[in-house]
Amino acid sequence: MKEALALAREALSLGEVPVGCVIVRDGEIIGKGRNLRESGKNALLHAEIAAIDEACRNTGGWRLGDCSIYVTLEPCPMCAGAILNARIPKIYFGARDRRLGACGGVLNLFEENFRFKPAIVGGILGEECASLLGGFFDLIREKKIDYATLWE
Amino acid sequence: MKEALALAREALSLGEVPVGCVIVRDGEIIGKGRNLRESGKNALLHAEIAAIDEACRNTGGWRLGDCSIYVTLEPCPMCAGAILNARIPKIYFGARDRRLGACGGVLNLFEENFRFKPAIVGGILGEECASLLGGFFDLIREKKIDYATLWE
Repeated sequence: MKEALALAREALSLGEVPVGCVIVRDGEIIGKGRNLRESGKNALLHAEIAAIDEACRNTGGWRLGDCSIYVTLEPCPMCAGAILNARIPKIYFGARDRRLGACGGVLNLFEENFRFKPAIVGGILGEECASLLGGFFDLIREKKIDYATLWE
Repeated sequence: MKEALALAREALSLGEVPVGCVIVRDGEIIGKGRNLRESGKNALLHAEIAAIDEACRNTGGWRLGDCSIYVTLEPCPMCAGAILNARIPKIYFGARDRRLGACGGVLNLFEENFRFKPAIVGGILGEECASLLGGFFDLIREKKIDYATLWE
């Protein structure tokens, strides 16, 4: 999760919502991502999607059944759905997302009637992850970062 | 939807589950996708993701708020989540997906407590879309196509 936090700080340095993600297999990081939605001008560029994309490229297949995913913010429906599609069996996340979270924050996708149900552990370095996000939104409120509101 | 069906047939010709998708703005197609998960060896390569990616590139932004999406199969959670993230307000789909559908087939993501709720119309050329998928799975059962089962 410390590696994911470092990636979140990279996103922050680009003026992005600070979220970072790594995918780990046998103790080795095989995929990294940071949120780049604004600078990349693309709705798909969440940290988890970038990390899954890299992990699939590195492993040469779409199944990541022997991997774990670490992400600083609870995955949204798109990213939780990508985890489902890639069959990643373990999700570790930091801060809870009450606005978009699909691992219990708004809904729990994995309590629905899908055949695949990963294990979920939230709150890993949760305060540090939440504090990084909170600091970012404080800067927006203080207008020290020029950023379109998420729901405009 | 006829354009989306043509893209689904392209996927079929590559031995993929035949799903196709287009994104339309002002009567013009600005994004196209076909399912390429197997040949692309990547869990993210659903038709909708490819179409949203192309549409974001073509428009130079992550918001597709003035677009509609047409897809031959009901979107899965990842793709429904991507539609949510891209703020696409209208979803037209063909065949129902009782295994992975996130627009009513397994769950309806848009009945959850998210601020954005697109309109959904299912069953557009539904028989033709379902028949194309059914024919593909018949070929697998008859072992005329070598294809890993979806849930192995």
